[in-house]
Amino acid sequence: MKKGNVLYGQSGGPTTVINSSALGVILESKRHSDKIGKVFIMKNGILGAINDSLIEVDNTDELKLEKLKHTSGAFFGSVRYKLKNSTESEIDYLAILKTLKKHNIKYFFLNGGNDSMDTCNKISQYLESVHYQCAVIGIPKTIDNDLVGIDHCPGYGSSAKFIANLMIELDLDNSSYPNGKVFIVEIMGRNTGWLTAASKLASVVDHGPDLIYVPEVKFSEKKFLKAVSEIYTKQRKVLIAVSEGIDYSSSCQTNSAVKDPFGHRALGGVGHSLASIVSSELNLETKVIQLGSAQRSVARISSRIDTKEAELLGNEAVRQAIKGTTDKMVTIVRTSNIPYSVKLGLENLSEVANKEKKLPREMISKQGNDITPAFITYAMPLIQGECQNIYKNGLLNIYSKK
Amino acid sequence: MKKGNVLYGQSGGPTTVINSSALGVILESKRHSDKIGKVFIMKNGILGAINDSLIEVDNTDELKLEKLKHTSGAFFGSVRYKLKNSTESEIDYLAILKTLKKHNIKYFFLNGGNDSMDTCNKISQYLESVHYQCAVIGIPKTIDNDLVGIDHCPGYGSSAKFIANLMIELDLDNSSYPNGKVFIVEIMGRNTGWLTAASKLASVVDHGPDLIYVPEVKFSEKKFLKAVSEIYTKQRKVLIAVSEGIDYSSSCQTNSAVKDPFGHRALGGVGHSLASIVSSELNLETKVIQLGSAQRSVARISSRIDTKEAELLGNEAVRQAIKGTTDKMVTIVRTSNIPYSVKLGLENLSEVANKEKKLPREMISKQGNDITPAFITYAMPLIQGECQNIYKNGLLNIYSKK
Repeated sequence: MKKGNVLYGQSGGPTTVINSSALGVILESKRHSDKIGKVFIMKNGILGAINDSLIEVDNTDELKLEKLKHTSGAFFGSVRYKLKNSTESEIDYLAILKTLKKHNIKYFFLNGGNDSMDTCNKISQYLESVHYQCAVIGIPKTIDNDLVGIDHCPGYGSSAKFIANLMIELDLDNSSYPNGKVFIVEIMGRNTGWLTAASKLASVVDHGPDLIYVPEVKFSEKKFLKAVSEIYTKQRKVLIAVSEGIDYSSSCQTNSAVKDPFGHRALGGVGHSLASIVSSELNLETKVIQLGSAQRSVARISSRIDTKEAELLGNEAVRQAIKGTTDKMVTIVRTSNIPYSVKLGLENLSEVANKEKKLPREMISKQGNDITPAFITYAMPLIQGECQNIYKNGLLNIYSKK
Repeated sequence: MKKGNVLYGQSGGPTTVINSSALGVILESKRHSDKIGKVFIMKNGILGAINDSLIEVDNTDELKLEKLKHTSGAFFGSVRYKLKNSTESEIDYLAILKTLKKHNIKYFFLNGGNDSMDTCNKISQYLESVHYQCAVIGIPKTIDNDLVGIDHCPGYGSSAKFIANLMIELDLDNSSYPNGKVFIVEIMGRNTGWLTAASKLASVVDHGPDLIYVPEVKFSEKKFLKAVSEIYTKQRKVLIAVSEGIDYSSSCQTNSAVKDPFGHRALGGVGHSLASIVSSELNLETKVIQLGSAQRSVARISSRIDTKEAELLGNEAVRQAIKGTTDKMVTIVRTSNIPYSVKLGLENLSEVANKEKKLPREMISKQGNDITPAFITYAMPLIQGECQNIYKNGLLNIYSKK
């Protein structure tokens, strides 16, 4: 392949390590100056490609770039935008093609979840159909950990680590009084319980939740109230981890009618709904912890393993692209649990696009309100290690465009 | 004073550094074996003294005790229990006196906020009235930072640091999309806005909230909606920090009728109430982050200054007690902002008991929806430094009774 430029974009919800993947792409691209000229980044994901709104990475200050590792958010701008099939409407594809040609893009990377892999797949197919030679590679990320074809998703380990440790802290807090409360922690997860399951890791140091509810299991209000009542009677405190996406709602939930461009319902509020029935039916004091975006943005306590893997996948995407690989997502394949080891792999974008990996049944207890040791074995390696030198004067030392 | 034993207790809401003060008392007591015999800890604060439920600290493993520095909660048990005046009912006082005599307690320490200083003051007065010789010293702590007679309260700096950095992370998260949302972060604070004001520290790195509402200022729904609308129109994202205690409520708030033994209303829910009107009146998408107890329990990101000062106050309480000081609270007096320096002091318990230090008007903007640079100067030194070696295998390496 002739020398060309790189175009990288971020897509979907941020994770604490998505900018580490960006760093991986940038640094690896610089290592292949024989094949790669410039590195461009789409402003707001695919929208940047459609609108020819690109950022050229001219910063060669690696120390400054390293700060991307503890900079939250999708630093270069993300978007939730669903590409129509090109047979239905070619307009966006023509705009993207124009941008690619204009900037001599030969390597195209989109960093996102299952919706983004769909976008990536469609672009790859389209470029092939119009015979525009460009490697198209998906770089996975999602705190939801719900991508198929990969052992675990970059971003998941850090959010899991935040949640696991928060459970320890909240249980210690709730243990402070002779009579504790019913703590209800609402955790992100639309259709899958991976993130909520992470709360179980706190049980390794005896501070795990008493009850865990995930979207994979049908929620029963009656069983829930019975369990809460029994546990409270026994130990005068209850810690509950619940996915925002369980099938339970009440009038207190905000925005439940709002849908995003992919048709997903905006969630949030189930914690308050549950608190409301615990309060009214059991007459127990409740406390709701609704972490919201904190779960995907607390970069300062990222897992080092997660940060490193995110960067490695960025590196690998570039290496694969210059080898001629296209229409693939770079993946992580676990080769051993103890000691933890992985190798990098590839999966067809079409196999990943729009699919969702649920929490396997064997990781959920028979009664459906707890998580099993099989999950702990799977997830513990992902929360190992801490990042260093992330503060300056007590505040996050983040990357800035200035 | 003859050789006697120490009795220490934790009281009121936990902070991330209250156990550092416990450590300070334990370690300093060991240094004065000529004056001090054993160290006892009341289980669940004053209740432990009333019920003669004490824990004897026989652990001499200092490395293990050091873990108290990153162990959340009031590890030895706290309580919210209001002592009646001894003239009204002597029963609790007689029980406490019996416990003190039984265990030869000559040094009594209660670690808490303004309610606890009231308890401490009453006990001190009572013991004097019955001629039982015992030094009674209050050790301050509260994330609310609302004690009078002290520059700032141990526990505040760590919670402030958590909140300030979370604002940076949330603003980065909300900046990820072309159209952001209205993020509403509900922060603890019953009557004072100290903790909510800490959100402003994020402005030092240009990621502070757009609007900050504290209980010291009357809340106007009309002005609020106008401000949100204007800011959103301009920058397509809004970050709001709001104290749980502002005078605004709606049907979605849980437990608002429940009061604690001091007559304080249980709070929580104002974030959802505000989200609800933003959604209905302005038709903007909202996201509520309700941190709840996370704010006072995220020990892993404590400020080192705060942890150190909490321990020092524990040390100082013991030193003062063996010098014969009684009926006082140990305090922090700031001697310089830049470089930050403090000295330790004393305040009469009666001056601290039941009083509340509000956020001064000069730290709140004229319009009442922002915080001024005067606050930043005051608070920045309190969030400096990080604690080390707090994890083991990715999970908090906490102190445990085992």
